[in-house]
Amino acid sequence: MKTAKISIVGFGSIGAGLATEIAKKKDFLKIKGYDLKVVTIVDADGAEIDEDGLNIKSIIEKRERGEDFSYAKGALDLIGEIDQDILVECTPSNIRNGNPGLNHILTALKNGVNVVTSNKGPLVVAYKRIMETAKKNNVSIGYEATVGGAIPLINLVKGNLRADDIVAIKGILNGTSNYILTKMHAEKRDYEEILLEAKELGIAETDASYDVEGIDTASKLVILANSLMGMDVKYEDVEVEGITRITPESLDLADELGCTIKLIGEVEREGKRLKVSPKLVPYDRPLSVGGTLNIVLIKTDVAGEVTISGKGAGPKETSSALLSDILNIVDERC
Amino acid sequence: MKTAKISIVGFGSIGAGLATEIAKKKDFLKIKGYDLKVVTIVDADGAEIDEDGLNIKSIIEKRERGEDFSYAKGALDLIGEIDQDILVECTPSNIRNGNPGLNHILTALKNGVNVVTSNKGPLVVAYKRIMETAKKNNVSIGYEATVGGAIPLINLVKGNLRADDIVAIKGILNGTSNYILTKMHAEKRDYEEILLEAKELGIAETDASYDVEGIDTASKLVILANSLMGMDVKYEDVEVEGITRITPESLDLADELGCTIKLIGEVEREGKRLKVSPKLVPYDRPLSVGGTLNIVLIKTDVAGEVTISGKGAGPKETSSALLSDILNIVDERC
Repeated sequence: MKTAKISIVGFGSIGAGLATEIAKKKDFLKIKGYDLKVVTIVDADGAEIDEDGLNIKSIIEKRERGEDFSYAKGALDLIGEIDQDILVECTPSNIRNGNPGLNHILTALKNGVNVVTSNKGPLVVAYKRIMETAKKNNVSIGYEATVGGAIPLINLVKGNLRADDIVAIKGILNGTSNYILTKMHAEKRDYEEILLEAKELGIAETDASYDVEGIDTASKLVILANSLMGMDVKYEDVEVEGITRITPESLDLADELGCTIKLIGEVEREGKRLKVSPKLVPYDRPLSVGGTLNIVLIKTDVAGEVTISGKGAGPKETSSALLSDILNIVDERC
Repeated sequence: MKTAKISIVGFGSIGAGLATEIAKKKDFLKIKGYDLKVVTIVDADGAEIDEDGLNIKSIIEKRERGEDFSYAKGALDLIGEIDQDILVECTPSNIRNGNPGLNHILTALKNGVNVVTSNKGPLVVAYKRIMETAKKNNVSIGYEATVGGAIPLINLVKGNLRADDIVAIKGILNGTSNYILTKMHAEKRDYEEILLEAKELGIAETDASYDVEGIDTASKLVILANSLMGMDVKYEDVEVEGITRITPESLDLADELGCTIKLIGEVEREGKRLKVSPKLVPYDRPLSVGGTLNIVLIKTDVAGEVTISGKGAGPKETSSALLSDILNIVDERC
């Protein structure tokens, strides 16, 4: 049995979702030879700590009752203090300076703690620095959950397609904007109206500007270009246009051509081209997937075009990606 | 630099395609830290041997000139004789008794040689025996290339989705029958006519019965069920119906319902249900992909539905899968 002590930093929907799945899959994981113990849970307002493994269910119930955490400690205090194998960073993404996530990640790596993260910000602003810090301290970092939710895209390319040279990647990388476009098209209703509804349903966040202005998609492109295509690009290298100017009329015009409109992110290594923009997509093409689905088309020298799609967001789906990274690190390091 | 000595058994389009890609990607693979040497190439009529690495280009040219191999030796003679790390088995598939592939694979494993194969037959008739033999002799077997051509399906599920429990798999697993149905639909022409044309184009083999009668799809389902879903099933457990009775008229009727007809393979663990049959698929569903494409929908407990598609056949595309298995084994064993 391989055991690993895990700290979860950030206990919003993603962090709590992961903790729940680890508790729920305890027996399944034991059959596969893994014993995962969550030893700390930290959020902005405090921490829970138990080196023998926390009782996840009672902590989630406690949070639902609105009670405070037991310890007034922050993530940075606990990194040097607690014995842990993997720190899972899932605080909210900040693509301006990457913090607080970047700080958490670099401090963990420097302390010899492996990191798994769902947080795009740190990877967008400091991909190279993070990778170099991990290498120098002989620890690993997994970031499958930063792009494409449940789609095992990054590990797929790094692992199973590593004999291939990736020449281009394009796809739908933001579930919220895909949901809005799909609804606008199907119900012939205005952008503003659908956005409001998506917010009420919890599909869009209160501030949905990252999603609808293409910022989220552009951030993901930067991560994909740097990590899978051997490029060295920054957010500023991406040409970005969102979906805020799409009207039901433009969708009708697209329909007459047998097409719909999708927010497409594209990276081509040749010419260092990175672009996010609404594009006409014929109905019979894979990229016409609807709802909150994400889809990615990978173009390689040997395999040709491989397309993969799945749920792009959601705490449960993101847990699949986080868990996959966690088990990779346990196999490699623990 | 990790080096590996490779033998290729079966020098038809797949074997020759792999040898060509290994030669072509020599520098790319060296940058990634791999030095792959093809030390033997064996076909039914003889072998080429060079423990320092064969010159692939000159062997392919020699074959094109219709010249014989240099040595009158068979695969089984060479397994004990030649120093090799990985035997790549790509002789034609035989799902009745698995031979000659099964014999090659078991002999290699018993001699402590790792195996990579594109040959479905041995896996369909003796999955358990092959896995037990590999384990007992402390060697590995990779069989990504047996299902889905360039789609890295098996390693995706075994690796990146291994925290997930796979409850069902369904998809289009045969490119030839998909090509025929797509053409029949688009051109409103008869099955027999399109089949003949596919044979002329090299998309269908002279004896296409495995493809059009659903036997190839059923074989792949058996491999997926046993290897990814923890089942223990045989070919006889699959209910099989092919596409030979589909008429242009039935495709027209489907069209009126906004659907097309696809040859779908399905496995559900609950109830041990394995089935291959032509099904109505709405145009806007991922499974409606056309041409020779393959597509697989994987249903899991945590990630939800993940869909992956790509080229299902072709020597170059199959090389991507074989190479991925080869590099996995080199990392693990060499």
